[in-house]
Amino acid sequence: MTADRSGVGTVHLVGSGPGDPELLTLKARRLIDSADVVMHDALPGPEIIATIPEEAAEDVGKRANGERTPQSEIDDRIVAHAEAGREVVRLKGGDPTVFGRAGAELSTCIAAKIPVEVVPGVTSAIAGPALAGIPVTHRDHASSVTVVTGHEAPDADAPPIDWEALAQSGGTIVVLMGVGSLDEYTAALADGGLDPSTPVALIERASWPDQRAVTGTLETIVGVRDREGVEPPAVTVIGDVVEAIES
Amino acid sequence: MTADRSGVGTVHLVGSGPGDPELLTLKARRLIDSADVVMHDALPGPEIIATIPEEAAEDVGKRANGERTPQSEIDDRIVAHAEAGREVVRLKGGDPTVFGRAGAELSTCIAAKIPVEVVPGVTSAIAGPALAGIPVTHRDHASSVTVVTGHEAPDADAPPIDWEALAQSGGTIVVLMGVGSLDEYTAALADGGLDPSTPVALIERASWPDQRAVTGTLETIVGVRDREGVEPPAVTVIGDVVEAIES
Ligand SMILES: C[S@@+](CC[C@H](N)C(=O)[O-])C[C@H]1O[C@@H](n2cnc3c(N)ncnc32)[C@H](O)[C@@H]1O
Ligand SMILES: C[S@@+](CC[C@H](N)C(=O)[O-])C[C@H]1O[C@@H](n2cnc3c(N)ncnc32)[C@H](O)[C@@H]1O
Repeated sequence: MTADRSGVGTVHLVGSGPGDPELLTLKARRLIDSADVVMHDALPGPEIIATIPEEAAEDVGKRANGERTPQSEIDDRIVAHAEAGREVVRLKGGDPTVFGRAGAELSTCIAAKIPVEVVPGVTSAIAGPALAGIPVTHRDHASSVTVVTGHEAPDADAPPIDWEALAQSGGTIVVLMGVGSLDEYTAALADGGLDPSTPVALIERASWPDQRAVTGTLETIVGVRDREGVEPPAVTVIGDVVEAIES
Repeated sequence: MTADRSGVGTVHLVGSGPGDPELLTLKARRLIDSADVVMHDALPGPEIIATIPEEAAEDVGKRANGERTPQSEIDDRIVAHAEAGREVVRLKGGDPTVFGRAGAELSTCIAAKIPVEVVPGVTSAIAGPALAGIPVTHRDHASSVTVVTGHEAPDADAPPIDWEALAQSGGTIVVLMGVGSLDEYTAALADGGLDPSTPVALIERASWPDQRAVTGTLETIVGVRDREGVEPPAVTVIGDVVEAIES
């Protein structure tokens, strides 16, 4: 965090929370308002993106040709801005360390001797359920919560997800990036022994003005998704906590 | 969230984040500054507690005799304040739905027909590791993170924690309330097949002015805790992500 080299800007990997501008932290707000450049993609959501000072905003989500910008290109741009002496905010949806590539960007900055810090944010994995009235842990229903990706990168080196072990965990399961692959992991969890009547909720665009939640069971939720036309961004919550609160 | 009964105050179950006042959300800050009463215990930490307007602050952590206030008594006080027409902030460390009794307090308010909302916060489970340079997920190291309590209430109804299944998960494990029971769950994870050389970190008072992190392995961390005198509040992070970032 201390400047290793004079004239080099600091990089702040900042979580934006799930999308409501009031769920930004005070620190995120201050850094966004004072940075020379705020590099973002679409995930922070339209309401927060609209609050970025226009002269600082840099959309790095897509390239001119409409393709997703490769991580290596984003890394290069972060380094170039900092080396030019700019204060850089790299704004991420939710918390930067929850499926947010913070690891890659931290390593890039450290290797380039650029001062870098993580500014934690409110993750959609926990806030999404909470804003739909679902506590991810509950004294009488769940002593753990596992947050897992529904989209394993084929070229990533992390150990493969063991859905059978997860089915045995007895805790809440929250899946991110899991709208398209819902069929596969609900089947894998059922194969692993999770009760087909386990309640499941999908929370779409949590904290956005058009937030929506739909519910079903491990067995029925794919049909619910199709009928209701649920689309990303959404989180899937699996477990008894879905029905813990009477409302 | 809409007022069911006129003259009744709204209850806001608000997450304070891990302790740095700048990691409060804008919404938490606004509600704390405008509430009639802010009910809190010690977990939000001294820096945040010092920012609560004096006339609104109500410490519900301990009773006059020094014992921990029972949840039923806190529930009663929340209801009494709201019925008296007060706007109530129930301030919780981190996020209210992560081992924060949000479930009980939500149910209490709903049963009493008191309007209630959850205001998510930055959880220490994710921010603690992040502020020590550890991303809980990582493309090349972990596709899941499980947040689990190290202190199962003996009278709670949740299914018991299956440390053997957890040992097989292949993902990051974060234990809250797990300083005292470190001996037991590290042994259980090793019994379950987790490699004794798996890196482990303890992050104490994350984001407080005196934050500290110590590291070891599944095999050595108990000794490290004892030698360094690590005390609550602290989070335990178990997994390869502990060593993912060179610094
Ligand atoms: C690449 S991951 C990043 C997650 C982010 N770092 C976080 O902590 O929320 C993107 C996924 O996050 C989830 N997500 C992000 N924002 C969301 C929102 N407002 N409502 C529901 N899900 C959201 C969705 O599952 C989405 O596919
Ligand atoms: C009753 S739980 C509440 C957790 C809280 N709701 C959250 O989301 O952070 C209390 C535990 O949270 C963790 N904790 C809370 N604040 C912390 C901090 N600033 N640094 C490290 N651990 C913390 C510790 O494990 C502590 O024992």
